[in-house]
Amino acid sequence: MEHLNKLIYVAPVAGVLALLFAAWRASWVKSQDPGTKEMTVIADRIQEGAMAFLKAEYQYLAVFVVIVAGALAAANLSGEGRSWWIAVSFVAGAAASGLAGFVGMRVATNANVRTTHAATKGLPQALAVAFNGGSVMGMTVVGLAILGLSGLYMLYTQTDVITPMDAHGNPALGWTPKLQTALSVITGFSMGASSIALFARVGGGIYTKAADVGADLVGKVEAGLPEDDPRNPAVIADNVGDNVGDVAGMGADLFESYVGAIVGAMVLGLSFPSVASEGIGMGPIILPLVIAGAGILCSIVGTFFVRTKEGGNPQIALDIGAFGAAGVMAVLTFVLAKLLWPATGTNGVTWYDVGIATVIGLGVGVAIGLVTSYYCSIGKGPVMGIAEQSKTGTATNIIAGLGLGMQSTAIPVILIAAGVVASAEVAGVYGVAIAALGMLSTTGIQLAVDAYGPIADNAGGIAEMSHQAPEVRERTDKLDAVGNTTAAIGKGFAIGSAAMTALALFAAFMQQAGITSIDISQPRVMAGIFLGGMLPYLFSSMAMNAVGEAAMEMIEEVRRQFREIEGLLEGKAAPDTARCVDISTKAALRRMLLPGAMAIVTPVVIGFVMGAEALGGLLAGVTVSGVLLALFMSNAGGAWDNAKKSFEGGGYKMKDGTVHEKGGEAHNAAVVGDTVGDPFKDTAGPSLNILVKLMSVVALVIAPLIAVTH
Amino acid sequence: MEHLNKLIYVAPVAGVLALLFAAWRASWVKSQDPGTKEMTVIADRIQEGAMAFLKAEYQYLAVFVVIVAGALAAANLSGEGRSWWIAVSFVAGAAASGLAGFVGMRVATNANVRTTHAATKGLPQALAVAFNGGSVMGMTVVGLAILGLSGLYMLYTQTDVITPMDAHGNPALGWTPKLQTALSVITGFSMGASSIALFARVGGGIYTKAADVGADLVGKVEAGLPEDDPRNPAVIADNVGDNVGDVAGMGADLFESYVGAIVGAMVLGLSFPSVASEGIGMGPIILPLVIAGAGILCSIVGTFFVRTKEGGNPQIALDIGAFGAAGVMAVLTFVLAKLLWPATGTNGVTWYDVGIATVIGLGVGVAIGLVTSYYCSIGKGPVMGIAEQSKTGTATNIIAGLGLGMQSTAIPVILIAAGVVASAEVAGVYGVAIAALGMLSTTGIQLAVDAYGPIADNAGGIAEMSHQAPEVRERTDKLDAVGNTTAAIGKGFAIGSAAMTALALFAAFMQQAGITSIDISQPRVMAGIFLGGMLPYLFSSMAMNAVGEAAMEMIEEVRRQFREIEGLLEGKAAPDTARCVDISTKAALRRMLLPGAMAIVTPVVIGFVMGAEALGGLLAGVTVSGVLLALFMSNAGGAWDNAKKSFEGGGYKMKDGTVHEKGGEAHNAAVVGDTVGDPFKDTAGPSLNILVKLMSVVALVIAPLIAVTH
Repeated sequence: MEHLNKLIYVAPVAGVLALLFAAWRASWVKSQDPGTKEMTVIADRIQEGAMAFLKAEYQYLAVFVVIVAGALAAANLSGEGRSWWIAVSFVAGAAASGLAGFVGMRVATNANVRTTHAATKGLPQALAVAFNGGSVMGMTVVGLAILGLSGLYMLYTQTDVITPMDAHGNPALGWTPKLQTALSVITGFSMGASSIALFARVGGGIYTKAADVGADLVGKVEAGLPEDDPRNPAVIADNVGDNVGDVAGMGADLFESYVGAIVGAMVLGLSFPSVASEGIGMGPIILPLVIAGAGILCSIVGTFFVRTKEGGNPQIALDIGAFGAAGVMAVLTFVLAKLLWPATGTNGVTWYDVGIATVIGLGVGVAIGLVTSYYCSIGKGPVMGIAEQSKTGTATNIIAGLGLGMQSTAIPVILIAAGVVASAEVAGVYGVAIAALGMLSTTGIQLAVDAYGPIADNAGGIAEMSHQAPEVRERTDKLDAVGNTTAAIGKGFAIGSAAMTALALFAAFMQQAGITSIDISQPRVMAGIFLGGMLPYLFSSMAMNAVGEAAMEMIEEVRRQFREIEGLLEGKAAPDTARCVDISTKAALRRMLLPGAMAIVTPVVIGFVMGAEALGGLLAGVTVSGVLLALFMSNAGGAWDNAKKSFEGGGYKMKDGTVHEKGGEAHNAAVVGDTVGDPFKDTAGPSLNILVKLMSVVALVIAPLIAVTH
Repeated sequence: MEHLNKLIYVAPVAGVLALLFAAWRASWVKSQDPGTKEMTVIADRIQEGAMAFLKAEYQYLAVFVVIVAGALAAANLSGEGRSWWIAVSFVAGAAASGLAGFVGMRVATNANVRTTHAATKGLPQALAVAFNGGSVMGMTVVGLAILGLSGLYMLYTQTDVITPMDAHGNPALGWTPKLQTALSVITGFSMGASSIALFARVGGGIYTKAADVGADLVGKVEAGLPEDDPRNPAVIADNVGDNVGDVAGMGADLFESYVGAIVGAMVLGLSFPSVASEGIGMGPIILPLVIAGAGILCSIVGTFFVRTKEGGNPQIALDIGAFGAAGVMAVLTFVLAKLLWPATGTNGVTWYDVGIATVIGLGVGVAIGLVTSYYCSIGKGPVMGIAEQSKTGTATNIIAGLGLGMQSTAIPVILIAAGVVASAEVAGVYGVAIAALGMLSTTGIQLAVDAYGPIADNAGGIAEMSHQAPEVRERTDKLDAVGNTTAAIGKGFAIGSAAMTALALFAAFMQQAGITSIDISQPRVMAGIFLGGMLPYLFSSMAMNAVGEAAMEMIEEVRRQFREIEGLLEGKAAPDTARCVDISTKAALRRMLLPGAMAIVTPVVIGFVMGAEALGGLLAGVTVSGVLLALFMSNAGGAWDNAKKSFEGGGYKMKDGTVHEKGGEAHNAAVVGDTVGDPFKDTAGPSLNILVKLMSVVALVIAPLIAVTH
């Protein structure tokens, strides 16, 4: 077996390949023609705004990372299985995710205007630019994640930088203490990734909706300007918001899930007796890295199949790439498991079981994405039901959307529950972690597809603002429409993977805290579940309030500019778009601190005050309640959005045969529904993914400390 | 100690006193002057409608009860701790709750018109009639509940009607098997009560909102009639709905909680070694009955303190009665515990601990009620925040309401979690059950206060329809306004007591199923929590859809009558109100079957297919998620309602000093919010209380069967 352990090099090699591929695609995108001066001026302002947000965000983050790293180092100076190197892992995780976000945003904001220009030539050209721009984000995320994780793993296990200690603080010799310490220290990387995700998703979510509401409510409703009109001071901030929320936010979210699933599986691999001997039977620990590496290779190959012809359907091209990569990956997993899985010392789990668990995860992930897409797609029953209910007014539209969102939780949760039971049936809790990893193995191309959406959206905005010919806007609209579907699938996928990752981290937490059961019938555990179940509600209300308050600041600024800048509405003077970007940036970052602090502090307090079991209850409660609320909010919001869109272009034909035009009463009711859904689907809902994972990873990181104090 | 066991007679005696008191008050109400012919015609139609609903409901129920009783008897023909008498308990529980609902509704619909007439004389007279009408419901519920429970307990333990069996089906001799079998068989009473609650709360909730929406949307909005106009065909159904939802529904809900808490505590009393000997140390088993009995006596005394003078505040009168009874009860509990609690064989739990647990429950119940009232009251921050957000339109009003509802879950859940931990700290899981009972001990007067609200509401409607002088409507409005506050407190209290009761039943379920721990780290348990957490969402969406569909039928009927009955809108012809009542009745009962079946079938399927531990996970998930969603929906709905009311009578003054009149844009936005909130607070929210308790009691009833098959 020992020589096969060399297969671990698949991980860093795949990581390097992913980064090279990303660099190649980035330079290709950059080499494309950005179009006219009018276009580049707009695109530059969007890019400047996006970079300004990132710069401000990273300033806050730097302070945060230094403080947390210091605390982590201090708390882990000595003790069994601990080392201050956990702070290094933490900083590395934060830096890797932050760098991926920076690169992804930079290239996405290069790609948007070039997509617009390519659309003047044809649909295939435009798709190529948009998708290649997205693939830079996808490959940078997985590349940096796997390179960081495999690098740290090799550093901690193959060198002597960390000194394992026993319970009395004396050096502990032998392979097992070294491996245990290494994996305990690696969890810091996952927490670093989660910290960035918190800022990117929560801060980004507040940013994007504050800008959106400001642009819509004053610009469109009060001043009567069309969408994306250059006279609207908040319109640049709105376009920046699409990148901040959907590129950087989604990227950091999946970075966190990806890393969490790998780390969770590696830590749980410790439970197999086979790993007690260095070099022999290390399969359970290194297989997660190798599977992730293979997934990257499949993703890279998959991107080459994403191409279309004029008049073709970009959706099919994207599906071939993503599903093709997933299919190949499913087969490849069995080969890798066969090669790497030890013959003995695996508690009865075979290579075949591990392969099955991966496929279960892949299947559940795809199925949740499809269900989400069904609930949120134009022309499908659920969205048509909401459009139909708009006939009797706003109230019935809202009630229908809320009811639909609640109903839409059922099948995904049944899928998750079935996935957990089935993967655990074949391979125990390790199976659950492997299933999570299976779901995430092709994140490279998944995220490329996700990031393609906002690039296409931005391209449409630039086409509008720079007064392009109608067929250009038609082509970008076609790309954008597909982007909305991929966004819906992506959101469902992000929630599903967050749930599975949280469960993997939960199992890893129990192992590290040294507890073998968390008994609901213990009042502390039940209290923990109650408190955990409540946190997503409180967190969501904070996020929605933050949007409301930040939007108010934006509204006042836009009104002020219309009032004070002479000639602005007549198109004779330029708006001060930078000031709107600045307001949204500051408001978003300031207002994410309270919910963010709650997510980090609660598990620490509950863990140390009420003990590891109560903390376990808290995690179970927050995971279940958070996943449900996220599904409810994301799907209701997505369905409201498309119910509104159903009225556009020719109107919506009700069951009774009447046609309701855009601008009619039914459409107006649907617009209100969409506005209610905005903070649901773009702020609170996605933020819950982070809450669930962040609390689990904080628990995992502090688990060894709790184990000692209780 | 033995002679003190005679204290159990406190329970049946208190039950008889409660019924005599109810009969006395009922005849007093009946003896009051119902007023003019015009008034009695309207009141008779409301009463007929209410009775028609009950009759139809009880026909469905009869079929349901026969089927379930048959299944229960067949499944419990033999086996350790089982007997077919459980079917008798079940029928008795259903009959008792059904009878209480019938009596309460009958008297409430007598009291409404007499309150109107009394309001022609003065406020104190009107309060007296309304409150005495409500107290009949309160005392009938607690009287029948305690009489049924104590009667069955004595029948099963003091006679030989049931023959205890051992695991092989042979007769089991001795006191312990007899007591165990008796308590196992008594759980059927709780399930019977839950079945009625399901029909009354879910069916009633659909009824009341279908009628309300039909009356409002066609009568008020389309035809421009004022509220409660006699020309509106659905207005009688609307007034019937208030009784069906808020009198019968709330009564059955609290009947279920009350019985569930007592049964849960009695079953958990089995865990104390002291009860192994008949006649000695039976305190843990009979104390719950005695505490409930004493609570009834306190409640009866409390009702005498509910009186006011002209120009006085009815709220203060109600508070004195309810809080006074609770305060006396807190003291009395210690006396009773001191008398009845065994000196040894109680696993270290002392009489003092039991007293503390009761007070914890009382305190948590009162605190949750007050928090709920804060979040839903006119003039308080949260409601004013929503009113403020109505300025910028419907969307911001809705978002503010949803955010507020989510935020409002925090403190009640912290209170419940603290209550669980604290009561378990002093007296184990038995302490949790006793805390639930403490919360519910003064249900007699609590429910009287709750049922007073809809009577006052109806009285106002009758005043309007029968064209009374303005000061009459002013007085009934004053009573009604107080009723809205008591309703908000009552809803919070109902949710809190449902949570605590469900936890008591959960603990009893574990004991009866013979499982000592439910380990979250078992994948089946985690899957159970996920599925359980999802059920309240699915259940709520079903309930809200049912309201939408039933309302559509009602809307079409009202439109048809306006179209086809000549002279109706001119007041020259009478509407066919009976037909509207009929439609609402049938629509409600038909549409509650699917969610109802789901609530009963799910625990059975999960229990037998996935085992007792998975079922335990399901119960934990449904309890936590159900309580959160119920708090969210009830509080959001209550706050929207009062935000709308803030604009009535002189308009609402915003922070910026502008006054927004009734009928203005801000008020219209608030009206939409209120309409969205209606199915939240009156259908889906309260129905979740039933879901949570019903699933727990079904689990408790089938627990001995699962214990054998797994």
